[in-house]
Amino acid sequence: MAQGASKVLRSYTSGRWQVGEGDGTPLHDAVTGEEVARISSAGIDMAAALNHGRRVGGPALRELTFHQRAALLKALASHLREHREELYELSAKTGATVGDSKFDIDGGIGVLFSYSSKGRRELPNDTVYVEGAVEPLSKGGTFLAQHIATPLRGVAVQINAFNFPAWGPLEKFAPAFLAGVPSLIKPASQTAYVTEKLVELIVESGIIPEGALQLISGSAGDLLDHVTGQDLVSFTGSASTAQKLRAHPAIVRNSVRFNAEADSLNCSILGPDATPGTPEFDLYVKQLVTEMTVKAGQKCTAIRRAFVPAELLDDVAEAAAERLAKVKVGNPANSGVRMGALASLEQREEVRRSLKALRGAGDIVFGDPERVEVVDADAEKGAFLSPVLLKADPERVEPHEVEAFGPVSTLMSYTSVEQVVDYAARGQGSLAGSVVTADAQFAREVVLGAAPWHGRLLVLDNDDAKESTGHGSPMPALVHGGPGRAGGGEEMGGVRGVLHHMQRTAVQGSPNVLSQVTGRWVEGAPRTETEIHPFRKSLAELKVGDSVVAGPRAVTEEDVAHFAEFTGDTFYAHTDEAAARENPLFGGIVAHGYLVVSFAAGLFVSPEPGPVLANYGLENLRFLTPVKPGDELTVTLTCKQTTPRENADYGEVRWDADVTNQNQESVAKYDVLTLVAKEQR
Amino acid sequence: MAQGASKVLRSYTSGRWQVGEGDGTPLHDAVTGEEVARISSAGIDMAAALNHGRRVGGPALRELTFHQRAALLKALASHLREHREELYELSAKTGATVGDSKFDIDGGIGVLFSYSSKGRRELPNDTVYVEGAVEPLSKGGTFLAQHIATPLRGVAVQINAFNFPAWGPLEKFAPAFLAGVPSLIKPASQTAYVTEKLVELIVESGIIPEGALQLISGSAGDLLDHVTGQDLVSFTGSASTAQKLRAHPAIVRNSVRFNAEADSLNCSILGPDATPGTPEFDLYVKQLVTEMTVKAGQKCTAIRRAFVPAELLDDVAEAAAERLAKVKVGNPANSGVRMGALASLEQREEVRRSLKALRGAGDIVFGDPERVEVVDADAEKGAFLSPVLLKADPERVEPHEVEAFGPVSTLMSYTSVEQVVDYAARGQGSLAGSVVTADAQFAREVVLGAAPWHGRLLVLDNDDAKESTGHGSPMPALVHGGPGRAGGGEEMGGVRGVLHHMQRTAVQGSPNVLSQVTGRWVEGAPRTETEIHPFRKSLAELKVGDSVVAGPRAVTEEDVAHFAEFTGDTFYAHTDEAAARENPLFGGIVAHGYLVVSFAAGLFVSPEPGPVLANYGLENLRFLTPVKPGDELTVTLTCKQTTPRENADYGEVRWDADVTNQNQESVAKYDVLTLVAKEQR
Repeated sequence: MAQGASKVLRSYTSGRWQVGEGDGTPLHDAVTGEEVARISSAGIDMAAALNHGRRVGGPALRELTFHQRAALLKALASHLREHREELYELSAKTGATVGDSKFDIDGGIGVLFSYSSKGRRELPNDTVYVEGAVEPLSKGGTFLAQHIATPLRGVAVQINAFNFPAWGPLEKFAPAFLAGVPSLIKPASQTAYVTEKLVELIVESGIIPEGALQLISGSAGDLLDHVTGQDLVSFTGSASTAQKLRAHPAIVRNSVRFNAEADSLNCSILGPDATPGTPEFDLYVKQLVTEMTVKAGQKCTAIRRAFVPAELLDDVAEAAAERLAKVKVGNPANSGVRMGALASLEQREEVRRSLKALRGAGDIVFGDPERVEVVDADAEKGAFLSPVLLKADPERVEPHEVEAFGPVSTLMSYTSVEQVVDYAARGQGSLAGSVVTADAQFAREVVLGAAPWHGRLLVLDNDDAKESTGHGSPMPALVHGGPGRAGGGEEMGGVRGVLHHMQRTAVQGSPNVLSQVTGRWVEGAPRTETEIHPFRKSLAELKVGDSVVAGPRAVTEEDVAHFAEFTGDTFYAHTDEAAARENPLFGGIVAHGYLVVSFAAGLFVSPEPGPVLANYGLENLRFLTPVKPGDELTVTLTCKQTTPRENADYGEVRWDADVTNQNQESVAKYDVLTLVAKEQR
Repeated sequence: MAQGASKVLRSYTSGRWQVGEGDGTPLHDAVTGEEVARISSAGIDMAAALNHGRRVGGPALRELTFHQRAALLKALASHLREHREELYELSAKTGATVGDSKFDIDGGIGVLFSYSSKGRRELPNDTVYVEGAVEPLSKGGTFLAQHIATPLRGVAVQINAFNFPAWGPLEKFAPAFLAGVPSLIKPASQTAYVTEKLVELIVESGIIPEGALQLISGSAGDLLDHVTGQDLVSFTGSASTAQKLRAHPAIVRNSVRFNAEADSLNCSILGPDATPGTPEFDLYVKQLVTEMTVKAGQKCTAIRRAFVPAELLDDVAEAAAERLAKVKVGNPANSGVRMGALASLEQREEVRRSLKALRGAGDIVFGDPERVEVVDADAEKGAFLSPVLLKADPERVEPHEVEAFGPVSTLMSYTSVEQVVDYAARGQGSLAGSVVTADAQFAREVVLGAAPWHGRLLVLDNDDAKESTGHGSPMPALVHGGPGRAGGGEEMGGVRGVLHHMQRTAVQGSPNVLSQVTGRWVEGAPRTETEIHPFRKSLAELKVGDSVVAGPRAVTEEDVAHFAEFTGDTFYAHTDEAAARENPLFGGIVAHGYLVVSFAAGLFVSPEPGPVLANYGLENLRFLTPVKPGDELTVTLTCKQTTPRENADYGEVRWDADVTNQNQESVAKYDVLTLVAKEQR
């Protein structure tokens, strides 16, 4: 591929692989400087691609439930894992070491697995997402509301950065797919050959529906001119490009959901307790060097500003320099190499320019921006750069504003919590920050002080160091994004990232209408007292609203006394009439709450073997009215929601339980959770 | 005030009332045309106002807990309610009837009450909001994460529309205040005299901290040039102004959270079942006329597009025209008047221009844009306009694009669900829509089809009509805002609107650190087995992490048999060994879950009277391992969170309960909810 005229990378749009017109722009191997491929999107019909996503991909995805989409994500993740060697091979040409490649490729596959699991556990096996509680809007209960989320009917346009050609597209694709929204990926040109391979593996696998994923290799052309209020645009890259896109006329005109994740001047703070010799001192230095050198520092979450107590500045500088000196730079294919090349010669030039600005505010502690010893490679043809650690005056503006997107960090000193929180804020919004300390109080103060400027904050100490995923690693379950300079966006965050692709709508109506719309029984909606006890119905037979009313059963003085004795729960309110009278809430002996729910179960249960396999839990139990000896209990149990499992012969059924007394007052309300077989056995 | 040179409206910024320089621009009574006031913000230092909010208002608000802020909102609401007559008086000058004024003023006060109540019930009595579940990030459990939300450190700049000079500012202020973020209100000039009075009532009451609320009467000047990534801008008004603000350089540069709520072409859909003579037919017509005439149709949620089945078009047109003919237009001070004036003569000219465009696509069914009979007023001096109902071809573009912001609606016909959903979507994003039908299946199809284009959808039928708040009323508990043309924003929505003013941060660390940061005990964090049983401690003495370990207690065969007999819960898994062996999950007799939690209570309870007043509920109960006869149970109860009430001598305590067996396996986990006295009695 690298010899002679290299191939032009393909795009996958409107259901077919296409090659852009013309010779394309050459892309070079970051290590050898050889041409890897060419890239062009000239002639590709962007409006048609968007329409293909809207008309083919969207409807196909919306046919599937969240659980079905989750299952496809899992299958896709497994498929990619089997083929990851093919991706590693191309990844090496971006300057990445094997470790870097795993970070990108295995990291991206991990996001798919994580979203698959979140989808199965936290989303319903349904196409509508019911968000939050029912909102009562009236005294009589005939008028209420429920927020729901439905997939936007457009395309998620995903514009990615060069540094993570696999993880970047996958972390944006996974939540969109789970939401039921098709993706259109536009990778940065520099490393687009990795993304092209990734998309090829996905498309050729046939696992996901046609139209759910498209790829544009090359310039976005007039793509953004065609976005509507139902489309989304997510961007990862420089703050300046983010600004340009945010103000794009079509985005502004149509209030297009625009999410930016921009490089930021992330900081790491060492606690005053973490003096040399403590585990936290070592953890700090080690993490700093790791963040400087992984992906040659080309990570939007990397540590750019290292704040240490003034009295520890020299110690940290010395220890970090010592570690940095051991980092071998060179050909990532060589197993001794710890740090590979930057993504391109242009990228190196840009870092050198930023370094010049930073040097105006401080001195270099380690490294020479113009010279680096490389292993097994040509230092001039490859985009190699030495790690560079600076020491600067934190009162200067440059270290808080100038980002050198490479293996570069700046050490600065502080003298109080208030001061370091203020310094952290001078970055004007960051994706990630970290505090390294064994002092939980110091951690609390820094975290609460710096939180408004951060999307993620890591507290590293000896307790969590072994299992910590580190300062620079965004996690699929956590939000990724930060305010201000970091772009003001949020990606991932588990289900939050899914909901970002959906429209939240408040639906107002009667309980019956809300039940029909959401597929969940809502209090006040009709109940069907079926001839057959609902516990005798399989998941296939059971309907939302099916219910059983059982009782009454009197609760006697003896019952309460006996329950107290039997269980050992001799709390005075159940056993001592005089003391119970003094209780401001009861004014006399009351039955145990646990007795009430136990009697209720005794009333509603259908004892013989049948489809109901187990009661696996209970939620939102509230005791609403005290039960006094002599009260008579009736329970109404109503099928509220059914969740068949995709890969088992049973599923979950949630029941509404309402225990009332002889005056029709509710004494206890709760949800009973059961496992029920799909079919009669 | 109206004679001679009227006063210049004051601004309240930087801690004092200020009058803008110069003569100001005159504002006119909508009914009489007389000058009401003048307006100017010339010379007011906008940057200083923002800084005042950041340096004085923000810190004062952040000192308070959510519950304390909620209590202030309630006090403020009560104060305003006492003084509402003063606001009504000014409101009449905007052309509003008494009903219109109540909608605006009482509606706004209602938002304060609602947020006060939401804050007390749904937010902690704390300064940090803990959002979502703890996210496990490691196998060993030493590294996990928790999302928290902290108030942004800037100012919420709130730019309001002329049509709701009281409700508009209050619905934006309430969630910001509850979040701990100061507000800077800039009302539309036309009706700013009402807002000036409102802010005067608030400021002079002394109820809220200085700096928490500022007012700019007049132009925003260079205000937006000074916003940072910690400030927010919320706008209500025209789509074109929203676009201009969204692309403002400082907003774009600093990724400022920008929320727009723009007028939209909201629709109301009549179901095919709702033929003349049905209650739903009448509800539809009545609601249509109400939405056209309340506030003289100057509501961003009003019905602009009325879709009815083709065969019912003439019936609806006739019935609506008949009702409209009875609407008396004129001086709102006259009690016979149903509809007042538009806000200004300019406004009327704009509506007439839009009407011209609409008439290109259809005909007028009722009303004359150039002529209206008015009661008790001068039709030329006041901004009066007849309600105008049109009938148009839904395939034309105008009815879906041209908004006449006045008493104007357009009737259109449809022939299928798919078609009417498509028509609804042609509005390209709406704040609110409604479906009037007794057919729940039709309602479901329309709601799920139209939801991606709507922030709110009302289903109106005979069941909820009596209690329905109607198509046009945004509710504080529900999101208000819509995608695309409606601005792409969201306001209110209960706690959602509060969180909009806060930064969400994922905090990663050890269980101990997360407990310290959030003030809530997190699984894996240290527990303190105190000498004194934690049930014997008052809220003042109790510490998060205090715990008691009790047990073991063996569960015998006899216990299970007895519990079954006593409670009546004779489910076969507890009573029939042979049948229980066939159960795929148990493989033999198991103890009742209710028995396990009852025994656990017997173990952890401290029976004598003390600070613990009651167990009022239980949450998130999961049975994790079956308990077999012979198993020995131990329970660990740990104080997880305390919530002292602001206005009672007790509060809530949430306990973590973990019931384990002799193999240290958890058999049940749950939260126990109790009420505990603040002090020992």
